[in-house]
Amino acid sequence: MGKKVVSIIMGSASDLDIMSEAASTLEDFGIDYEMHALSAHRTPDVVSTYAKEANKRGIKIIIAGAGGSAHLAGVVAAHTTLPVLSIPVKRPDHDHEALWSNIKMPPGIPLATMPENGGKNAALLAVEILSLNDAKLAKKYDDFRQKQHDKVLLSDKELSNVGWKQFLKGQK
Amino acid sequence: MGKKVVSIIMGSASDLDIMSEAASTLEDFGIDYEMHALSAHRTPDVVSTYAKEANKRGIKIIIAGAGGSAHLAGVVAAHTTLPVLSIPVKRPDHDHEALWSNIKMPPGIPLATMPENGGKNAALLAVEILSLNDAKLAKKYDDFRQKQHDKVLLSDKELSNVGWKQFLKGQK
Amino acid sequence: MGKKVVSIIMGSASDLDIMSEAASTLEDFGIDYEMHALSAHRTPDVVSTYAKEANKRGIKIIIAGAGGSAHLAGVVAAHTTLPVLSIPVKRPDHDHEALWSNIKMPPGIPLATMPENGGKNAALLAVEILSLNDAKLAKKYDDFRQKQHDKVLLSDKELSNVGWKQFLKGQK
Amino acid sequence: MGKKVVSIIMGSASDLDIMSEAASTLEDFGIDYEMHALSAHRTPDVVSTYAKEANKRGIKIIIAGAGGSAHLAGVVAAHTTLPVLSIPVKRPDHDHEALWSNIKMPPGIPLATMPENGGKNAALLAVEILSLNDAKLAKKYDDFRQKQHDKVLLSDKELSNVGWKQFLKGQK
Amino acid sequence: MGKKVVSIIMGSASDLDIMSEAASTLEDFGIDYEMHALSAHRTPDVVSTYAKEANKRGIKIIIAGAGGSAHLAGVVAAHTTLPVLSIPVKRPDHDHEALWSNIKMPPGIPLATMPENGGKNAALLAVEILSLNDAKLAKKYDDFRQKQHDKVLLSDKELSNVGWKQFLKGQK
Amino acid sequence: MGKKVVSIIMGSASDLDIMSEAASTLEDFGIDYEMHALSAHRTPDVVSTYAKEANKRGIKIIIAGAGGSAHLAGVVAAHTTLPVLSIPVKRPDHDHEALWSNIKMPPGIPLATMPENGGKNAALLAVEILSLNDAKLAKKYDDFRQKQHDKVLLSDKELSNVGWKQFLKGQK
Amino acid sequence: MGKKVVSIIMGSASDLDIMSEAASTLEDFGIDYEMHALSAHRTPDVVSTYAKEANKRGIKIIIAGAGGSAHLAGVVAAHTTLPVLSIPVKRPDHDHEALWSNIKMPPGIPLATMPENGGKNAALLAVEILSLNDAKLAKKYDDFRQKQHDKVLLSDKELSNVGWKQFLKGQK
Amino acid sequence: MGKKVVSIIMGSASDLDIMSEAASTLEDFGIDYEMHALSAHRTPDVVSTYAKEANKRGIKIIIAGAGGSAHLAGVVAAHTTLPVLSIPVKRPDHDHEALWSNIKMPPGIPLATMPENGGKNAALLAVEILSLNDAKLAKKYDDFRQKQHDKVLLSDKELSNVGWKQFLKGQK
Repeated sequence: MGKKVVSIIMGSASDLDIMSEAASTLEDFGIDYEMHALSAHRTPDVVSTYAKEANKRGIKIIIAGAGGSAHLAGVVAAHTTLPVLSIPVKRPDHDHEALWSNIKMPPGIPLATMPENGGKNAALLAVEILSLNDAKLAKKYDDFRQKQHDKVLLSDKELSNVGWKQFLKGQK
Repeated sequence: MGKKVVSIIMGSASDLDIMSEAASTLEDFGIDYEMHALSAHRTPDVVSTYAKEANKRGIKIIIAGAGGSAHLAGVVAAHTTLPVLSIPVKRPDHDHEALWSNIKMPPGIPLATMPENGGKNAALLAVEILSLNDAKLAKKYDDFRQKQHDKVLLSDKELSNVGWKQFLKGQK
Repeated sequence: MGKKVVSIIMGSASDLDIMSEAASTLEDFGIDYEMHALSAHRTPDVVSTYAKEANKRGIKIIIAGAGGSAHLAGVVAAHTTLPVLSIPVKRPDHDHEALWSNIKMPPGIPLATMPENGGKNAALLAVEILSLNDAKLAKKYDDFRQKQHDKVLLSDKELSNVGWKQFLKGQK
Repeated sequence: MGKKVVSIIMGSASDLDIMSEAASTLEDFGIDYEMHALSAHRTPDVVSTYAKEANKRGIKIIIAGAGGSAHLAGVVAAHTTLPVLSIPVKRPDHDHEALWSNIKMPPGIPLATMPENGGKNAALLAVEILSLNDAKLAKKYDDFRQKQHDKVLLSDKELSNVGWKQFLKGQK
Repeated sequence: MGKKVVSIIMGSASDLDIMSEAASTLEDFGIDYEMHALSAHRTPDVVSTYAKEANKRGIKIIIAGAGGSAHLAGVVAAHTTLPVLSIPVKRPDHDHEALWSNIKMPPGIPLATMPENGGKNAALLAVEILSLNDAKLAKKYDDFRQKQHDKVLLSDKELSNVGWKQFLKGQK
Repeated sequence: MGKKVVSIIMGSASDLDIMSEAASTLEDFGIDYEMHALSAHRTPDVVSTYAKEANKRGIKIIIAGAGGSAHLAGVVAAHTTLPVLSIPVKRPDHDHEALWSNIKMPPGIPLATMPENGGKNAALLAVEILSLNDAKLAKKYDDFRQKQHDKVLLSDKELSNVGWKQFLKGQK
Repeated sequence: MGKKVVSIIMGSASDLDIMSEAASTLEDFGIDYEMHALSAHRTPDVVSTYAKEANKRGIKIIIAGAGGSAHLAGVVAAHTTLPVLSIPVKRPDHDHEALWSNIKMPPGIPLATMPENGGKNAALLAVEILSLNDAKLAKKYDDFRQKQHDKVLLSDKELSNVGWKQFLKGQK
Repeated sequence: MGKKVVSIIMGSASDLDIMSEAASTLEDFGIDYEMHALSAHRTPDVVSTYAKEANKRGIKIIIAGAGGSAHLAGVVAAHTTLPVLSIPVKRPDHDHEALWSNIKMPPGIPLATMPENGGKNAALLAVEILSLNDAKLAKKYDDFRQKQHDKVLLSDKELSNVGWKQFLKGQK
């Protein structure tokens, strides 16, 4: 296993269903990562230390996810100069409170907010950033985008071929 | 000057216009307080240390105010077992992001959210808490509530006496 | 059984599933409480009298919860000088109307708003307030916070040990 | 002066600019009213007593207006069986909190919510209710509606006559 | 059967589950009503004619309910001088669009907005209005309010007697 | 089969359940259409080319639907001078983001926003536009509107005949 | 002057500042229109008759704008089979109530919602519709779009040439 | 001048006041950038070509800002594999439509959303990304963060020294 370059951190192990999408996407690209479930509110010092030392350990990007009044990504960003990508976790009984807790960071401490529950896109943005200095990874990402493109066209072709009534039945 | 029992902390000195209402209300009740402008994002370790040591210094209640994705009160609450009263600061170009950043704290780390820009009511809640073990203060607070009550009746009486048209002119 | 120091009041017995979390949390800390289901709209005089006399009966903190256009906490606060902690009750078919009915109290009558359906945190804030003058309770609360802290670390350790795929399976 | 049949009550004399529109509209229809500025939070017992006795004094309809977490109309409705028309007061720095504090009353205690700052329409609804048993008033109201209708047509005619460019200039 | 004094009108027969609560409440008070399912958009002229003639037929109050961009109550109000009580119908996949379509009527055409899906309270407000000139009905309504009051106290007593744990079990 | 005059395009084949309502409505009116599932984000060039060439192929109206940050309709509108009718797709776990992504187009590039998930009304608006120069289609549409009108009256009649209690049972 | 093919109707002459943008845009394209200020609430029968007869008078498209609980466009659509383009009028003290009053029309009565205050885009959509059968107008619209395109490029070029600091000064 | 590594693109030159904050921040760090004002709606092909060729020209990060139904950043992201940082432009008369148009991108095309009007933080995130492979820049950024930290402490010290009343006067 290679050196871990991405850190995935979540406010509670109960967020794992969302955050695991980031992990599995990174795996698709062969990017090594570490993953932790640490709370900015219940274990604040552990989080601070973790964020401060990430850089030294070789981490290049931190993906942080939490729900509710979600302070984790902001707290992590306050303790590191690495890019922090935030995933607002939104459950069926939530409104956008996690989004608001992340999107209005004060000037001076940047945070990149990804879609609510957007584990996959957070990982893809990490791929884009790492690709800036990794031509092989950049090639893999190009391929991924092309495959995604082709899959849409294939599906569109099938829709034309079978007609929407048949296609719709197939979806059910 | 007596011992400082309330701490007023704000995320930026630019929040002073709001937070000073808490300070002046505490002064009205003769309660000693300390006041700091420290950022959870720009000076995270100073805030953590400050929150951790508040109890030892004799502080009993912390009033914390910040705007935007406002993490200050939550960070303070994570580092102390004192009651933390949060004031979401809301400027004309803000939506309720500071409120959402405070009102949905996870179970286990309580935060009492006061009205947006509610410096006065935060101080009054502190007075109510301190009054639980301070009969003299309790008396002062009873008087304050009574005066407030009487002032409403006086104004209502004047409205009846002069009539609303005259009263309205007096307001302009 | 000791003297009752906390009052839990809800606008309708149908709110009991939410408010009972406050009760069971208080029990965890050995705090005696009383509990009532009284409506600010259907039984206004009973609520007023109840709120007015709470102080005399030895109550120190009132936790009030209601849903919809939730006036209970505000009505209680209007009739007492005790700290009132409000729990906006939010059902699946509600928007934030109970929150709005509590969070914007006028200057002069403070109300501490807790998270929507936040029975546990309301009780914990009561514990924090009562701990200010009860060293034994303060110790219990410290222990609670430490246990909560350790539980997060334990869970994080397990996540590392078994790996997220295994851990995720265990959650389902 | 005749018998007062409508009561206009507001949570604070500072709401008079809004509530006076109700008063002046009632005057246009020759309906006698009384007006008070009493707070559900600062003078709760005065409000309760006032609401309870309104019926006996001959009042038939209560128009109640307040802003923020606006409990006044609900408190009044809890203490009377008269129709209560609520005006949510909304200032430039408010969101819809007063509306939410009124529109979701629990089944059993009805409240008729009028537009935010809708003093005029509250008075007109009172006119409609009183007209049910007052043919002379009903006639006056018919005339009002007709005049309002004709005024629109007149303005539309002028728009056609002078053309919109000229008409627009006249508005500035 | 007596003379019909209340009209219940809904935008679609699919709203009947909500609007029937108004009907059954009116029946509880012995008030005769008529009920129609007519669309302001699909059958505009039928609605206009219906609204215009309601007064002549002896109707005193119109309760109108519709969902989505709900124009029914406003259209009815435009064609009558009777008090119109509006029920915004809100389904699980709706936001508050029906509420917004009713609550901001322009000055001059009043509409009393009742709670979303508030069939019962709309009927109770009708009862309050009709009680102004019907002492027998007023008495019935007083009794209803008293019974409602007593039911709360009874439930509260039971909660005290059996304890919340037992009571909660009984609710499930 | 005639010439295709309407194009139905959706951002993903997973939107077909919504967009097929537009298709089946067009079929009801005998209007020929083509249908594609192409992504503005995953297949941007295919979408651009498609939009640019629609006019030449004889398409007169484009109905475009997508969910989330829905750029499809705007991108299509940017590449054509044909009328574009946009359907914001809204799933149970969505807020109004698709609506906001469509309704605030800048001056200069018009987009007609239809109801969220409003496949049927988008098709009907297309019918209205095409009817401007097709008397036969206009007649069909008149008939559709009349049938719709009559169906409401029929349902209302049945409600009166069987009574609401029976009618309600029939709905369940 | 040619035959009037577009009707611009607004709920109140006070909406003229918004609706005049539609008029002046139509003038730019040489399209004849009529304009009226008629209220769906204050002059309902005039509006109904007007909408019903528009088709016969040769009108092809109706642009309707109103604010608040804006029923005008829906009422017009109910009485015509012509395409109706709705402009929700939004003033500084409004929320999106006019948008909600238009965007959720029930299936069967289509309404094309344009941007809030979007007079210009409503007119441009009308141009797009009329261009379907008017090659000369289509050419004019192509030119308009091209000019608009070129203007952006020109402005971008100037930004590059003078540099943003100079360009920014020029904007102030 | 060095090689341009960041591209700043805005939907309209009228967004320059916001986007220039990104530019001036990049200048503070000595990062070369290019800047363009191109519309995804008015000049779609120019934007597509620009986005496609950015990578080849040596651009590493694209900062894209637009208001309203803001499609620019999404369109750019669809045509490039570079990291795209989006700035939702929000004017006083806007709601969060630009945010919603960016934050819910579909899985597969990532977009990093920065704060509304957050030109400075977008530039700082770019600095963080570029610092991953530029030790000198990383050092500059560390210094920036340290200075920012020290400035807060200095301001806090002054607040303590002069007292809040004096400090507040100095702010006005």
